[in-house]
Amino acid sequence: MSDAHLPFDTAFLDRLADVAIGTGLNLQPGQQLVLTGAAETLPLVRRIAVAAYKAGASVVTPILSDEEITRARYMHGHYECFDAAPAWLFAGMGQAYEANAARLHVSSENPMALSDMDPAKVGRASKANAIAYKPALEKISSFAINWSIISYPGRAWAKLVFPDLSDDEAQAALAKALFAASRVDVPDPVAAWAEHNAALATRRDWLNEQDFAALHFTGSGTDLTVGLADGHLWSGGAAKAKNGITCNPNIPTEEVFTTPHAARVNGTARASKPLSHQGSLIENIEVTFENGRITKASASRGEEVFRKLIATDDGAARLGEVALVPHASPISESGLLFYNTLYDENAACHIALGQCYKDCLIDADGISDEALDARGGNSSLIHVDWMIGSAETDIDGITQNGDRVAVFRAGNWTD
Amino acid sequence: MSDAHLPFDTAFLDRLADVAIGTGLNLQPGQQLVLTGAAETLPLVRRIAVAAYKAGASVVTPILSDEEITRARYMHGHYECFDAAPAWLFAGMGQAYEANAARLHVSSENPMALSDMDPAKVGRASKANAIAYKPALEKISSFAINWSIISYPGRAWAKLVFPDLSDDEAQAALAKALFAASRVDVPDPVAAWAEHNAALATRRDWLNEQDFAALHFTGSGTDLTVGLADGHLWSGGAAKAKNGITCNPNIPTEEVFTTPHAARVNGTARASKPLSHQGSLIENIEVTFENGRITKASASRGEEVFRKLIATDDGAARLGEVALVPHASPISESGLLFYNTLYDENAACHIALGQCYKDCLIDADGISDEALDARGGNSSLIHVDWMIGSAETDIDGITQNGDRVAVFRAGNWTD
Repeated sequence: MSDAHLPFDTAFLDRLADVAIGTGLNLQPGQQLVLTGAAETLPLVRRIAVAAYKAGASVVTPILSDEEITRARYMHGHYECFDAAPAWLFAGMGQAYEANAARLHVSSENPMALSDMDPAKVGRASKANAIAYKPALEKISSFAINWSIISYPGRAWAKLVFPDLSDDEAQAALAKALFAASRVDVPDPVAAWAEHNAALATRRDWLNEQDFAALHFTGSGTDLTVGLADGHLWSGGAAKAKNGITCNPNIPTEEVFTTPHAARVNGTARASKPLSHQGSLIENIEVTFENGRITKASASRGEEVFRKLIATDDGAARLGEVALVPHASPISESGLLFYNTLYDENAACHIALGQCYKDCLIDADGISDEALDARGGNSSLIHVDWMIGSAETDIDGITQNGDRVAVFRAGNWTD
Repeated sequence: MSDAHLPFDTAFLDRLADVAIGTGLNLQPGQQLVLTGAAETLPLVRRIAVAAYKAGASVVTPILSDEEITRARYMHGHYECFDAAPAWLFAGMGQAYEANAARLHVSSENPMALSDMDPAKVGRASKANAIAYKPALEKISSFAINWSIISYPGRAWAKLVFPDLSDDEAQAALAKALFAASRVDVPDPVAAWAEHNAALATRRDWLNEQDFAALHFTGSGTDLTVGLADGHLWSGGAAKAKNGITCNPNIPTEEVFTTPHAARVNGTARASKPLSHQGSLIENIEVTFENGRITKASASRGEEVFRKLIATDDGAARLGEVALVPHASPISESGLLFYNTLYDENAACHIALGQCYKDCLIDADGISDEALDARGGNSSLIHVDWMIGSAETDIDGITQNGDRVAVFRAGNWTD
């Protein structure tokens, strides 16, 4: 399992590992690292382990998945099995985060891995996993620890993005796009990330000063008013986790985002890009929100998966995040559809169904479920982003006294 | 990561997967499976997942390790890190076994993986791991659940066994030897295993009828009297775990074994084969036991690792297992040194330092530490087998009234 077969310069993997540990996690001496990804990502995972131990990690524990093993379950598993989940592993992860372990996920998944499997089985297994994973996920979504996600150019994923290229050419092309978006194709990636984080912080601070009551999105089939949670906070780029460590949860990242009000979303939204969800592709989503809840939903492909998703629980049909990304972002300008949320969400304004980030609320530390609900923070087992932004997107901020402030015009910031 | 590169017929992997799930684990519908092994073993791990799901597994969770990641820690880890362990993962495993998950390990490790690393670091990390792993290990050693170990022909391991062959030739040769020893090179592996289990059961039952007070080993530098625990039980081949499932914990297996008396071992023992322990090779071990405890120890190679091993705790210098294997066993007759306990222990009579198998004691269910100790059952964080048998080994059974019964002569059963 050497690297000789890889059709790209592995020096970029070394830099990506350094950015993941230094900028993404800002891993501190003595921290354990829970490192998840597919077995295919080993060339990067190994370099991350080296970077982590150099930074003083106490133990790096790789938890490697495999698409063929995941598929084997749907192909051969007995009917009863799909309501089970490896609760023991998720409980262990929760315990690790409780003890201040950092968490890094290397994303390389083929978004179509499960598209030919029975959606009912996929839905049951997803729900069972979501329930079992909830205690661990809460440590992530409440930003209790430093965590990050980066990507590796997996071969099946690459063929989806570049269907007309050979396997090697496709992987090389995806690698080039990922390395550019992750800012590791410049001489000093760490300095480039510092500059980018500063630019995102300027946008974030302006939005926090405005303290809008709502955002009004129009364009490309969307006419949606997204009320913002009472005492919402905008985030973007580097942020300080509750364990005191400033990290970059997403590599790459182009968004500034906050917590909407779960009961104050009204209008229609049309997805501007396909949503790849746990191995299924969902295309042309159209939904209507009334008082925060989706009351009508359709999709030209994967509609059943989408309907099961929003039926996971009450909060699954309400918003937990709204994010602003200019159409002029590097990922958007690449013109590629990555079929991967981490990339596609950084190419367009988006909303997320499900669990909100409590970290995007003022004074929400240890907030009760009732108080969270009262301020508009949504609760759910899921958190699924999908894109509504495009080159036609206009956004007005609506102030607390009802005035309108132009925020986006034709897909980009007005200033 | 296709199988096209493998220099052996992968149909044997399908059979090995079937034997692992059917005979090794006897996996029952609804059981979860904790599946550990190196990432290199994926071609077999994937087939095991298929066989497991066909048998009704609810969830198969692969926990894949990687030699390069393990080595990265010793090469780059800070001084403090080696006293840490992934306790969260082991706690999770313990929880899985508590909930009746089965456990399968696929062994492929290069026994020399850590031989060039600092033995002090290896020793500290081993001890930290052993302490953290103890709650999960107890579920295995007390036979609470069905578990098994099988092997995969890893490339680095193959080069060690066949240093004069090319990489591909070595892997093919090791594959052939493993498939033969695992009885998957016959038309009906499951029937072959049933016959073999019956033969081992005959030996086991005879030894249990004899109820020897001790065994006296002589030959090849060994003159050792191994007292047996009060109310010891011999085991071998298939056995019923406490969850009611009859399984074969080792594939292959040629041994019948029991619990010695931790305070009644006297004399000298010389290792008849090198001991490969957590990446280090320990050669020509010679020890003297007095009243059960090692009082002198030497080795021509790896002596420091061995000394650290037996200093892990008080029980680490006492015996927890004694096992009888005829020199005429198939693995012994292959003439190969596998540098792997699972194989080499099935080529020769052996003893194990450390934790005893409570399952090799009559009425030991829920036995207190004090009662276990009183009967001679040893307790330790470790359990490490090493070989003392050879073509020269004679064994006398010493009955409760002091008579001698010939058990082995010149390395084989007397009958």
